[in-house]
Amino acid sequence: MGITPERLEDLQSSIVKPSSWPEPRLLRFDKAASGIEAGTAIFENGEIIYGYQKIRRALMLRPAIQRHFKERVAVEEKMNGYNVRVGMINGEIIALTRGGFICPYSTEVVRDLIPGKIFEDQPELVLCGEMVGPENPYVPKDVYPTDSIDFYLFDASKKNFRSSLGVYATHKIADEYGIRCTPLLGDFRKDRAYEEIVEIIKQLGRRGREGVVMKDPDNILAPIKYTCSESNCADLESAFRYYNDHALDFFVSRAVREGFQSVEWNESDEERKKRSLRLGESIIAPMAQTIKKRMNGEQIVEQVQIRVKSIQTAREFEYHLRRMGMKAVFDQPEPCDEGYLVRITKLVMSTNDKTKALIEGEMW
Amino acid sequence: MGITPERLEDLQSSIVKPSSWPEPRLLRFDKAASGIEAGTAIFENGEIIYGYQKIRRALMLRPAIQRHFKERVAVEEKMNGYNVRVGMINGEIIALTRGGFICPYSTEVVRDLIPGKIFEDQPELVLCGEMVGPENPYVPKDVYPTDSIDFYLFDASKKNFRSSLGVYATHKIADEYGIRCTPLLGDFRKDRAYEEIVEIIKQLGRRGREGVVMKDPDNILAPIKYTCSESNCADLESAFRYYNDHALDFFVSRAVREGFQSVEWNESDEERKKRSLRLGESIIAPMAQTIKKRMNGEQIVEQVQIRVKSIQTAREFEYHLRRMGMKAVFDQPEPCDEGYLVRITKLVMSTNDKTKALIEGEMW
Repeated sequence: MGITPERLEDLQSSIVKPSSWPEPRLLRFDKAASGIEAGTAIFENGEIIYGYQKIRRALMLRPAIQRHFKERVAVEEKMNGYNVRVGMINGEIIALTRGGFICPYSTEVVRDLIPGKIFEDQPELVLCGEMVGPENPYVPKDVYPTDSIDFYLFDASKKNFRSSLGVYATHKIADEYGIRCTPLLGDFRKDRAYEEIVEIIKQLGRRGREGVVMKDPDNILAPIKYTCSESNCADLESAFRYYNDHALDFFVSRAVREGFQSVEWNESDEERKKRSLRLGESIIAPMAQTIKKRMNGEQIVEQVQIRVKSIQTAREFEYHLRRMGMKAVFDQPEPCDEGYLVRITKLVMSTNDKTKALIEGEMW
Repeated sequence: MGITPERLEDLQSSIVKPSSWPEPRLLRFDKAASGIEAGTAIFENGEIIYGYQKIRRALMLRPAIQRHFKERVAVEEKMNGYNVRVGMINGEIIALTRGGFICPYSTEVVRDLIPGKIFEDQPELVLCGEMVGPENPYVPKDVYPTDSIDFYLFDASKKNFRSSLGVYATHKIADEYGIRCTPLLGDFRKDRAYEEIVEIIKQLGRRGREGVVMKDPDNILAPIKYTCSESNCADLESAFRYYNDHALDFFVSRAVREGFQSVEWNESDEERKKRSLRLGESIIAPMAQTIKKRMNGEQIVEQVQIRVKSIQTAREFEYHLRRMGMKAVFDQPEPCDEGYLVRITKLVMSTNDKTKALIEGEMW
């Protein structure tokens, strides 16, 4: 890993944390350190799955493309869900979360969706993908063509290697094994990429999709991302619904993106007014809903659901959420086709309690 | 002060900091500690001017009034400027900032506006007031009837005492000595205060004023504050103009106020739409202006001005701003009636640099 055993020992307890469940046991980098990405997992058998790189964001798209890329820009859709890395360890397929935990639910899902043959053929492979859909327990979205949850491959890597295979090698794997892959929306010459991408962004926005990731077709330069206004506002909408349970930079960063896009797109007064209204409504409307609900004596909670093949997976996922610091109540699993539907109530205690106190006349 | 000399010594260097300029020397509480308000100043001669209490904010006004007050609610306008405490130490009138520094500019202004007789008659008096107007170098506002800066008394206290004299005693002092005082807008029975105050808030909002402070006429309960939507949005407007130089909670707290007011006022779809547009525009418009300016190669700065009687005051104020951690460039003083006009360019380096980097295509 390019770090000495002494340094690794040093990092233990503060940065590198053990996780013994589900098996196999591993050490995970809780934060980035010594140039190792957060989420990197070192397994008991010595194999390493490196954390996925953080993709930086363009706020002013044209100069960002100009400055960043060389000749061509490959544009993929950015899917809106949560990020997993899938690999085979000791003969078993596992799915790691961004933070380097093995997620029991994601593991069950990918074992179902990813043909085992891929890892039989290439046991060193690591598949990086986005879990999306309405039965995504973190970011449920119903804009994707699934009524449950799906895995979209967006990059591939190898165990013990930090670099990824790049756009074309990744799509080739997806084609070969019949796995869904994030749509490749174009591969443009740098000098006309901006106009193409803006058109793509507008179309994706209308469809409720998140945005794009721009990649170097030669896989030398790091990818960059850019999002649709509608997605920024949808983020704000869900954040202001639970206004006291989110980090403050979540709110402000999304507002700032809107300012830059409005200027870069050289909007007319009418267009800017439309954007301002959309932004304002994505702030006021969800808060109003939350406050009214609370005034009616309802609890402020976030309802999500998952579908599992075995009840054991649901139980394990409950434990997994708890260790991630999330408070959630699991309903009794309801039998359904091929398994069980489990409704989960995520508690947003801070917003719930704060709103109650405020409507009872407590001061901020 | 209710704390032991040992404890005071303990607090030194972390909480209690010496300030030797301008004279007289003092120790100031940089933060609140041991129940002593931040900004409390202990002078060399042993006299203490206590920090002004932080006034808590109602988000849901009706229940806040109901819960907080006893029988009546006195309503004063909340002026939008900066807070000073004025007292006489060793025979000289001085103005302390919120943080407990002697401000040379405010001191010159209050020496001009507050008749010395008041402190000759009552040398123990401490006048708490708001400095407002267009030549307010922190929060310039042109909604008050002055073309320079004015002092509005909003409370009075005594040296070495933590309690204040309350609404009526304060207005009596103002009347007696001919000092401006924050307008007393009513003294209502608790059960009809909400309707009256909402009407006042709407009127103040239309006039670009900030809001109200509600006080216990008997001066037993702590005051509470509540602001106009227009003022929340004006705050956002000026904050998003310098979007990278503000604390994140500044942004979010104002947005949250808007959500609560909209619900409490039971707004129609049309009214809520108007509020959302106002809020959205207060975010997008100032950022757009900042970004465009920077694209035209202009520096992002904040221009303010002060008027001083002596050039020395301007020099001292320059030093004062610097010690408060503000970066500002002072123009040559221009002679004007009874003194000098000094234009000050406050640098907002973070927004300036960040915006430049982003429009050149750097990632966020």
